[in-house]
Amino acid sequence: MHVIEGAINSPKGYKAAGKHIGVKKKRKDLSMIISEKPAVVAAMFTTNKVKAAPVVWNMDIYSKQKPIKAIVVNSGNANACTGKKGMEDTVLMAKTTAESFEIKEEEVIVASTGVIGVPLPIEIIVKGIKDLSKDMDDELISGLDAAEGIMTTDTTIKNIAVEVEIGGKTVTIAGMAKGSGMIHPNMATMLSFVTTDANISQELLRKALKQIGRDTYNMISVDGDTSTNDMVVVMANGMAENEMITEENNDYKTLYKALYYINEHLAKEIVKDGEGASKFIEVAITGAKTTEDARKMVKSILTSNLVKTAMFGEDANWGRVLCAMGYSQGDFDPEKASLEFEAAGQKILLLKEGLPVSFDEDYAYKLLQNRDIKINVFLEDGDAKATGWGCDLSYDYVKINGEYRT
Amino acid sequence: MHVIEGAINSPKGYKAAGKHIGVKKKRKDLSMIISEKPAVVAAMFTTNKVKAAPVVWNMDIYSKQKPIKAIVVNSGNANACTGKKGMEDTVLMAKTTAESFEIKEEEVIVASTGVIGVPLPIEIIVKGIKDLSKDMDDELISGLDAAEGIMTTDTTIKNIAVEVEIGGKTVTIAGMAKGSGMIHPNMATMLSFVTTDANISQELLRKALKQIGRDTYNMISVDGDTSTNDMVVVMANGMAENEMITEENNDYKTLYKALYYINEHLAKEIVKDGEGASKFIEVAITGAKTTEDARKMVKSILTSNLVKTAMFGEDANWGRVLCAMGYSQGDFDPEKASLEFEAAGQKILLLKEGLPVSFDEDYAYKLLQNRDIKINVFLEDGDAKATGWGCDLSYDYVKINGEYRT
Repeated sequence: MHVIEGAINSPKGYKAAGKHIGVKKKRKDLSMIISEKPAVVAAMFTTNKVKAAPVVWNMDIYSKQKPIKAIVVNSGNANACTGKKGMEDTVLMAKTTAESFEIKEEEVIVASTGVIGVPLPIEIIVKGIKDLSKDMDDELISGLDAAEGIMTTDTTIKNIAVEVEIGGKTVTIAGMAKGSGMIHPNMATMLSFVTTDANISQELLRKALKQIGRDTYNMISVDGDTSTNDMVVVMANGMAENEMITEENNDYKTLYKALYYINEHLAKEIVKDGEGASKFIEVAITGAKTTEDARKMVKSILTSNLVKTAMFGEDANWGRVLCAMGYSQGDFDPEKASLEFEAAGQKILLLKEGLPVSFDEDYAYKLLQNRDIKINVFLEDGDAKATGWGCDLSYDYVKINGEYRT
Repeated sequence: MHVIEGAINSPKGYKAAGKHIGVKKKRKDLSMIISEKPAVVAAMFTTNKVKAAPVVWNMDIYSKQKPIKAIVVNSGNANACTGKKGMEDTVLMAKTTAESFEIKEEEVIVASTGVIGVPLPIEIIVKGIKDLSKDMDDELISGLDAAEGIMTTDTTIKNIAVEVEIGGKTVTIAGMAKGSGMIHPNMATMLSFVTTDANISQELLRKALKQIGRDTYNMISVDGDTSTNDMVVVMANGMAENEMITEENNDYKTLYKALYYINEHLAKEIVKDGEGASKFIEVAITGAKTTEDARKMVKSILTSNLVKTAMFGEDANWGRVLCAMGYSQGDFDPEKASLEFEAAGQKILLLKEGLPVSFDEDYAYKLLQNRDIKINVFLEDGDAKATGWGCDLSYDYVKINGEYRT
């Protein structure tokens, strides 16, 4: 597997584009991904009880287990909490996309992201979809524009592409995502789209995403909020012409590894660009009783405002880490817990088998001045482990979210 | 019932004092409450799996169901995550208190609050307890000093006293608390001490606190973190000489009401003084399917960083409220939900039966400039309801917690 310069339109048979159409003031706010051939699809949708209209639309399509051909996304408005009108608008987005690209409306996945509770400016979007389809006819297109068109408070484009060889054929996999606020374990809270020309059965693609999602998207947290809108969608159109993957053979393993890489990369990029984030934090727990216990503790640490502000303040306040494990509902023996901070290859042990280790505060402070921090927890309760990713809580998070609509 | 000028030492038979002994740099850091006669006790302790040494000590005493005579509290150091040495230090605090006041060590409740994971400066505390007991002999004492001695990042003293008449006798009830950071539903995360001279059975006192705690302390949130240390302790020494309350008669109801008032007051004071809080937020949900559903949703709204930053930004971003309800695990029908903001007697309806109501942004902004904001949610799923209290998330929260130890 190697990373290539490319974007969501790099796998064979995909076109993608992004455009400013006027939902947002200046930045691109409409993106389109089109697959020439029907693509099998795997997806994850928000677990929030309040689901935005496009999520409802997509879950219905998804349950029908049919291939799809398009993903249309607007940013700037989430079309959430918008009642019947919201659902009508989503259907209109799918219909307009279907007409513009001469496909069926049930082949169109719809996504919206942005402010909640405001009706979609649907005329602008309908016109925008038509305009964008013309641009795509004229080949005025770019996969990076598509990655830009789904951004909200993101400060960086999240884009990646890799190639692998499967059965003598070159298979390309590409992904793009948006995140920033409202990122929290249990899916929800971001948009992530992956395209591949791999030839794989729907069943196996869905199985792979379920496993990968659990260890990547579901292990990241920016602010503990789980949004109404978000989703991961993987399309596979088979145009690489590898022999169809229908069982968990070596071809599957090769593809799985690449898919894992793409999704882990996007998940990490999302937290690195968390709203106002100045630190990227990895938490790894080993020696836990069960994987579920380890996950609970990792998530609790990543979600704790006190841990997050300590990281922002570059303060080795490890007691807050232990405290967050304590209220996580994950089972562990605090008297056997050890804990270290790690950055730039340096480590500092702070707790050894339940007892504080006296440490050099200056050294710890220096270590925590790095942007990427690891918190390693060693338990003696079993063999299970989990890893997750998050960010600190900064002044800018408060600023960005205090002023989001204004 | 009427509020009186008084403090934790106002009920008959109680002495209290607070003093600076040197755990903290300048502010008072040791407090003592002594009851002349044995007092029955009701208490709640943190649910965090990582319990500080004093919590472990107290839970042991509490389980023995014996009356107590003293509460000793140091601030500046939580004696949490301090291993065997921590437990020895707690026992020494109890022993020193017992010797100084000629009582038994198992009559002493111990509390510590402050930084986690640093050994207690126990020599300073032992000397401090002895010095304080001399001050108390000399009557150099004040209940307000005791309320001051338990503060950490608190900016205000939390103190209250009321009088009620029970069976022709004047009964006094007083309380003091500290809070600020790490305040979250399910107890934990603050110290709250209540004294009364009421004559009531231990059984009924414990029953009353259990009910009251559920609706007061367990319905407040500052930052979603649940600390390792905290507790509510109610002492009743019987010196008002009312006929002992042993059943849920009118006397019980009168006392219950006063106890409820004191504890609700202290709980609210704690969130009003939440770290960096610039807003006091009350969330009330009615029409829920079950009380448990209503509680879950109230807590989820109060804990959401996105709701909290919106309140800080005085932004009527009600979609975040609905979103927080959606991921709360509380059951409700979003399509029947209505939602309004309320402040200073003014209301603004934002969502009516699942549909956004167009509203005057300027009016909403003006309304949200008030310090005290109510978020009222009306469901049509049943008759259950719940209310809770929290605060916004401000720059100062980040500042305070980024620099807590430094």
